[in-house]
Amino acid sequence: MKFSQRICSMQASPIRKLAPYAAEAKEKGKKIYFLNIGQPDIKTPQAFFDAVGNFKNEVLAYGSSEGDTRLIDAICNYYKDYGVELGREHVFITAGASEAIVFAFAALCDPGDEILVPEPFYANYNPFSQCVSAKIVPITTRAEEGFRLPSVESMEEKITPRTKAIVMCHPGNPTGIVYTREEMERVAALARKHDFFIIADEVYREFVYNNLEYVSFGNLKDVEDRVVILDSVSKRYSACGARIGCVISKNKELMAQILKLCQSRTSPPTLDQEGAVALYSTPKSYLQEVNKEYEKRRDIMYRALKDMSGVICEEPKGAFYMMVKLPVDNAEKFIVWMLQDFDLNGETVMASPGEGFYATPGLGRDEVRLAYVLKEQDLSRAMEILKAGLEAYPGRTAPVIAN
Amino acid sequence: MKFSQRICSMQASPIRKLAPYAAEAKEKGKKIYFLNIGQPDIKTPQAFFDAVGNFKNEVLAYGSSEGDTRLIDAICNYYKDYGVELGREHVFITAGASEAIVFAFAALCDPGDEILVPEPFYANYNPFSQCVSAKIVPITTRAEEGFRLPSVESMEEKITPRTKAIVMCHPGNPTGIVYTREEMERVAALARKHDFFIIADEVYREFVYNNLEYVSFGNLKDVEDRVVILDSVSKRYSACGARIGCVISKNKELMAQILKLCQSRTSPPTLDQEGAVALYSTPKSYLQEVNKEYEKRRDIMYRALKDMSGVICEEPKGAFYMMVKLPVDNAEKFIVWMLQDFDLNGETVMASPGEGFYATPGLGRDEVRLAYVLKEQDLSRAMEILKAGLEAYPGRTAPVIAN
Repeated sequence: MKFSQRICSMQASPIRKLAPYAAEAKEKGKKIYFLNIGQPDIKTPQAFFDAVGNFKNEVLAYGSSEGDTRLIDAICNYYKDYGVELGREHVFITAGASEAIVFAFAALCDPGDEILVPEPFYANYNPFSQCVSAKIVPITTRAEEGFRLPSVESMEEKITPRTKAIVMCHPGNPTGIVYTREEMERVAALARKHDFFIIADEVYREFVYNNLEYVSFGNLKDVEDRVVILDSVSKRYSACGARIGCVISKNKELMAQILKLCQSRTSPPTLDQEGAVALYSTPKSYLQEVNKEYEKRRDIMYRALKDMSGVICEEPKGAFYMMVKLPVDNAEKFIVWMLQDFDLNGETVMASPGEGFYATPGLGRDEVRLAYVLKEQDLSRAMEILKAGLEAYPGRTAPVIAN
Repeated sequence: MKFSQRICSMQASPIRKLAPYAAEAKEKGKKIYFLNIGQPDIKTPQAFFDAVGNFKNEVLAYGSSEGDTRLIDAICNYYKDYGVELGREHVFITAGASEAIVFAFAALCDPGDEILVPEPFYANYNPFSQCVSAKIVPITTRAEEGFRLPSVESMEEKITPRTKAIVMCHPGNPTGIVYTREEMERVAALARKHDFFIIADEVYREFVYNNLEYVSFGNLKDVEDRVVILDSVSKRYSACGARIGCVISKNKELMAQILKLCQSRTSPPTLDQEGAVALYSTPKSYLQEVNKEYEKRRDIMYRALKDMSGVICEEPKGAFYMMVKLPVDNAEKFIVWMLQDFDLNGETVMASPGEGFYATPGLGRDEVRLAYVLKEQDLSRAMEILKAGLEAYPGRTAPVIAN
């Protein structure tokens, strides 16, 4: 019996594939600090649970395929504060940003069509594109260059007649990059010149540090008709389990096409939309406090890593991840070793292997993605453990030099 | 700017495409009896809402990609009563059966691969297959023959080296067919002989009437490794808005492949899974009562239709739909006319146009799908309105003959 080539060639999620090793370690009584997954420990606003508890209909019915109008209005309202004027017709609610991505890919790409993505990138773009048989074409960026976009010329080399879109994760997962307006306009100019879409994954838009200005792709007027924004409440309000996201575009024809996909799966979850409506009335101060908290965590992780012999990384400016080069023979081997063979007083750390965040073969083999989603004290402890693990790891590739 | 061919060729959902006409009629003050969508009016068991309300975690976190173990166990337990022995490794929770279908199609088909489906079929199989560029190959069945499967020979004519699966909706939406064991074994023999999978959409498994025996494809031992069951709480417990379904297979290799898809979208909604666990502890008497209620409704609708001049239909044996041939020039035109131009004391009826349930061009143009999901009294009234509408419709194709 044969399965599809698309599924056989799919790599397991680097964020989740090592979960069985973690489960095994846990069973043996080890405490694990999870830095592999972007699961914040911040309390979900109580308003979510209250709204869900207040649901009074006797029948938990399908909602509208476009999503709950109150939630759509709340999202339009949210974007208004950022200078992006949206009408109800520009927003459809989806099952997390994940569904929004698949919808965008399916609507823009036929089998063999190409999607540009600066790499390293959110690993799940791979299976999402493979699901619709589209091809990810990576634009390599490097830690040493702060993961900045390359020149127009070297980006243009990757464009073919089959290029249908570029995915811009902004702020970037896993690099933490926040693009400058100039970089964004470089992308916009290419999109206009070569007639492709910009799929802007802006789920981390509230996580920007160093008082940097954040510009949304929705703010670029001259590509208004070729921008698709993906968004979600998951990270913004620490409500990952709600699976509520949205797809946004001012291109009416595109939205008419995407509506067919929305209708095919009937509707997003009803109760979670109730909760999400309430989330959007959370005072802005919540987001500011969360932002401050993450900036503190970022500082703790970055400083600790800078202090580890042989570790190479850049200060991330947004989101809550870092791509980190480790002095190890193979990052995946190292992570498994940390789970199976290492502990510091019964505790260890789990990271995501970096290779899965690259499309170019061979890249990222000695890198990991770390999420700084734990409380200060836990994060500091996790860094101690990582440091000790790196020093003890048999596959270490560089001598330990005391700072 | 161009969109994908796959999306441009996608038909809008026949179940949802006429929603704007209904909204307009509603605004004008018309009361509409909705027979177009399988949205039951049965009360969702209170246990669902209680379980959701009792959720005590402060963080609404991602769940496991496979789904909540308690829910998986509950499903295994449920199937045990039907003679289908499942382990945890055979069940993954999905966002409704919709996601389960897409996962099955993506795992089995590459672009251009073929999926057999007896037609008329659940219209959304079309966009789901188009999403992964697979091709639906219809096996036509006819109302006049009770929608029974054709002979092995005529089914075999549709099989090619690219046939990867057959979808068996059982009991059937929209036909209401309940397959005999002999029919199922005919399908199983073909699947073995030509090496393809059986995707059994069993979301209506509790809705079987006339005291008929219901056999699950999970009961066929000799195709155990090539059966994929799709299931959902939506209809069973009147919890459509929960969007909780599952994909089931005893083929370990296939499940390992599908797990990649599960991981790519992180996890199904957390709270809805809490609720679904509770649903599965609903006493069996609930399902029996619901079943009785639907059988009564089926009788009301079927008798009323039999009494309408020029209407052709078969008594459905399961699910809660009927495919009905109307004496009209065009069923879609008729439905729009009912919404825009007709009312009986300010009330009208909405149906789904039949054409979208067929893949063979031209079929179903004078058919509608009716869902008997309303209370007795409402259903009787809806039938009166439909009868009056059919008699008054200017595009009627047969004279009204009094019974």
